[in-house]
Amino acid sequence: MNKHAIYHITDVPYVYGKDTEILVIRIRTASKDIKSCKIHYKDRYDWENDFIVKEMKESIETDLFDFYEIEINVEEKRYRYFFELEDNQGNVFYVNERGIVKNKPLEPNAYQYPYLCLGDVYNEVNWAQEGIVYQIFPDRFYNGDISNDPKGAESWGGKVTPSNMFGGDLQGIIDKAQYLKELGITMIYLTPIFLSTSNHKYNTKDYYEIDPFFGDVKKAKEMVLACHNAGIRVIFDGVFNHSGHDFFAFQDVIEKGEESKYKDWYFIQDYPVNLDKPNYITFANDVYTMPKLNTKNPEVQKYLLDVAEFWIKEVGIDGWRLDVCDEVDHSFWRAFRNRVKSVKEDSFIIGEIMHEAASFLRGEQLDSIMNYPFREMCLDFFARRSISAGELNNILEINRSLYTHSINRQVLNLIDSHDTPRFLTECGGNINRMKLAIVLQYTYIGIPYIYYGDEVGMEGSKDPDCRRCMIWKEEDQNKELLNMYKKLNSLRKEYKALTYAPYKNLFKEDNILAFVRESDDEKIFIAINNNDKSTKLKVDFNEAFDIYNNININIEEGFLHLEPMSFKILMCHNDSV
Amino acid sequence: MNKHAIYHITDVPYVYGKDTEILVIRIRTASKDIKSCKIHYKDRYDWENDFIVKEMKESIETDLFDFYEIEINVEEKRYRYFFELEDNQGNVFYVNERGIVKNKPLEPNAYQYPYLCLGDVYNEVNWAQEGIVYQIFPDRFYNGDISNDPKGAESWGGKVTPSNMFGGDLQGIIDKAQYLKELGITMIYLTPIFLSTSNHKYNTKDYYEIDPFFGDVKKAKEMVLACHNAGIRVIFDGVFNHSGHDFFAFQDVIEKGEESKYKDWYFIQDYPVNLDKPNYITFANDVYTMPKLNTKNPEVQKYLLDVAEFWIKEVGIDGWRLDVCDEVDHSFWRAFRNRVKSVKEDSFIIGEIMHEAASFLRGEQLDSIMNYPFREMCLDFFARRSISAGELNNILEINRSLYTHSINRQVLNLIDSHDTPRFLTECGGNINRMKLAIVLQYTYIGIPYIYYGDEVGMEGSKDPDCRRCMIWKEEDQNKELLNMYKKLNSLRKEYKALTYAPYKNLFKEDNILAFVRESDDEKIFIAINNNDKSTKLKVDFNEAFDIYNNININIEEGFLHLEPMSFKILMCHNDSV
Repeated sequence: MNKHAIYHITDVPYVYGKDTEILVIRIRTASKDIKSCKIHYKDRYDWENDFIVKEMKESIETDLFDFYEIEINVEEKRYRYFFELEDNQGNVFYVNERGIVKNKPLEPNAYQYPYLCLGDVYNEVNWAQEGIVYQIFPDRFYNGDISNDPKGAESWGGKVTPSNMFGGDLQGIIDKAQYLKELGITMIYLTPIFLSTSNHKYNTKDYYEIDPFFGDVKKAKEMVLACHNAGIRVIFDGVFNHSGHDFFAFQDVIEKGEESKYKDWYFIQDYPVNLDKPNYITFANDVYTMPKLNTKNPEVQKYLLDVAEFWIKEVGIDGWRLDVCDEVDHSFWRAFRNRVKSVKEDSFIIGEIMHEAASFLRGEQLDSIMNYPFREMCLDFFARRSISAGELNNILEINRSLYTHSINRQVLNLIDSHDTPRFLTECGGNINRMKLAIVLQYTYIGIPYIYYGDEVGMEGSKDPDCRRCMIWKEEDQNKELLNMYKKLNSLRKEYKALTYAPYKNLFKEDNILAFVRESDDEKIFIAINNNDKSTKLKVDFNEAFDIYNNININIEEGFLHLEPMSFKILMCHNDSV
Repeated sequence: MNKHAIYHITDVPYVYGKDTEILVIRIRTASKDIKSCKIHYKDRYDWENDFIVKEMKESIETDLFDFYEIEINVEEKRYRYFFELEDNQGNVFYVNERGIVKNKPLEPNAYQYPYLCLGDVYNEVNWAQEGIVYQIFPDRFYNGDISNDPKGAESWGGKVTPSNMFGGDLQGIIDKAQYLKELGITMIYLTPIFLSTSNHKYNTKDYYEIDPFFGDVKKAKEMVLACHNAGIRVIFDGVFNHSGHDFFAFQDVIEKGEESKYKDWYFIQDYPVNLDKPNYITFANDVYTMPKLNTKNPEVQKYLLDVAEFWIKEVGIDGWRLDVCDEVDHSFWRAFRNRVKSVKEDSFIIGEIMHEAASFLRGEQLDSIMNYPFREMCLDFFARRSISAGELNNILEINRSLYTHSINRQVLNLIDSHDTPRFLTECGGNINRMKLAIVLQYTYIGIPYIYYGDEVGMEGSKDPDCRRCMIWKEEDQNKELLNMYKKLNSLRKEYKALTYAPYKNLFKEDNILAFVRESDDEKIFIAINNNDKSTKLKVDFNEAFDIYNNININIEEGFLHLEPMSFKILMCHNDSV
């Protein structure tokens, strides 16, 4: 047995309450090293009965590791457990708090999960898990009200620069709610809309005011209502890492220096404040318009949490996307979650974190992140073709191993955003490559994510070019892509296995990825051929229904035929695969 | 290279701020597998400069794993890093967010520690780290005021039963403050002293009242003052997992049933409340006198946090020991920490957790735990002689690998308590075995802990026998032990390396443990011979000063002579070991 590979800690995601009745337990072993993995468990104050023994099942398989998992339950919610592993040579070892031992552990050395507390149970957000996200950059989405256009607004579709504006606004979103509904969207996320001098508005001047180029608080209410009526929830973008330099508190520090009662809202090195050569901590490299807020200061916390509460209560938004989330302290996000969830229990909290984010996703801070590692991996496999299907699968499996199932179903699986080149551009305009990436996005675990305009084939290199105006002229829209998105959105809605069922890889050679999502009711088989030539894939079913094309598929001699750069999404009967 | 062994996560204890300037990074490899371990790091927004490369050092060595560590700093507090490992065969691998790779990682795949936030820095409690704890069971420590004795109090030294009382009280602690000071104690922890029907008082009737057999609030203030004047801090025991069944809120539920406004303070299954066959969740197995509190209920939280604040503000205590800590939700302890630290910044929060407690000790909940695994290990090695010196050392190393250095210096390394048999009794009365355990307790990392009476050789099997009355008659006290404790307390005070220096094992064969605690100023060598025969230990110094016996030691032919069941605590000059 490979003892170095074995890993278990009494913490998320290796042990946690699925609810107050069911405990989920995970253990890691070396890949293909173990013949059987059992758990022994009982109530931790039970001195009379023997341990209950159950077989654990494989849930995640990376190149290096297998993860075994089980859900268990004891009535009194207090657990004592250890593992029994048998390797391929028939050697049996036990894993307990003292490590890996040859003899059956003594009770005091068992792991303990002392009590499955109500206060520690993470409540997953099912409406989000079952949804489709659409990201809107408001200035570029749709101009619904020309009366509030910025002076000197560019004409729609003109060349984008770092600072120009086009007049898109909240009325534009109201006008297009029906479009979004027909596309199949259930959640929109807007980049910031509060008062700000820039077109992206990540330098907030006033957290309580809608930028007048976009509308006002009344218009925001109207927009949220229009979206809700179309079955679409609304997420605002909160920039709480830094304010704008024109925010009242920073202005007060500029004006009054060390005498300002807001001086501890920021990190000022010396006085007077120098905007030309910032002598205060800013976002990124001396971005003087974005002074970093001291989120440890209770006054700052109170101010920002009041803002978070205001927009939920006053305008009815359904959650927050948090800018530069990973540069703000965990303590702040814990307080943020407590406040936001106390106002709206099923609100959704998404962090902008571009990397592994386990320390934010244990359940007491965020519900989700912008899953940029998913994008990187799609780029590498589909756009750049720099990794194999095996490497792709390994990245997916590793990524899943970091989080609980609830979180894995909630991450936003994006392929691009306002901060990256458009995916189609990354593919050199090759639409077939993008289509395969989208298939993975929609059939894998996590929430599919559309950056506005991707659905009509918009291109654009890095910021600001990726923020071009939405193409509304039907003749300029890519209808093939649009129809594909609509079809996939409806599949996602119809087949809950795409949201809830586990992922099981079936094939990962020769640039072909095949996997299954199987629940009690549904078994969906997905194959992606990322080759410029056709191929045959051995399958163990004879017939299936192609739910994407709505046709029956006959398998000839056990092989599924795959055209060059093509995919299949098939419904199999449970007894046929 | 053993890839399965390599482990790093971007979370405590693998990466964390020592303060707002210094980032501590840890990585795990297979034992003796790596020739060199380097870190490459830079500011995460630095697109111009190369990564800085530094060699990491071994800090922890278990049987299976080595842990390498380093402290780094970049001015802007935003980190990007990856590891370079070279194995014994000269193969070089890199470890980054995507795992273990052969080629130098691309910048986007580096690990990130996005920002070393003020709000996430854990402030260690130095006064506690440098201290000595003494646990007092008040009814059995000293009767300073016979006027408040319980009716029918047993005479001092009589046989203890589960329910009898002896009249020990707060005045008794005041009277003995000088004794404790002379012993060298710097912190006392009292088991509960609030109004309660039992002698142990773990079933609280009133959290705001001192039990009249012990004194009153005024007397508590007087006691805290007397202790403070003697240089001794005071920790109270908070029973927040459950109340007594005679607590006003539970009484209200008994009386009014479902109509009680306190019904959601508990977990009542049906009404009326049945004390004979509890239909509510209790501590342990149906202990009807201890109904479990619903600490997720904001009213309960507020009540208990007000209690915690009250005793700090009103009486001046220096921290809390938290009963059944591990059965209460993490959320509650986060709120608890916020409140308590806002009232007294350097207060000390200790959880009663008898097992691995990493999920409580990441910095945002507890400062310390009762380190029962330390006791178990001492029992196994010294009392039961069931494990080897190598196994002992391995348990120490594994235990340290779970936590940050700050936490390791703060855990309470106890060898017994009011909940276990006395250590001397576990040793079958063999005082030499106990003495070696005490040497380890005082020379290892963590806070030494005396359960009242251990210092005078008290014996006692499991509860209630381990709670006998303190022996005050000098002729009945074991002076040899008492002098040993005094000596060790003064060594701990004099040599800060015993608090702060890392532990480095030197020898762990043949029931002999030898190790060194080396700081910039001091190098202390410790050897423990857990054999009934004398032995020689090869050392690489020729002379040293025995700081326990105050004599110079000459080493003959490179061997240190160790008598049967003996120990050495030597100060070496930095150039001599």
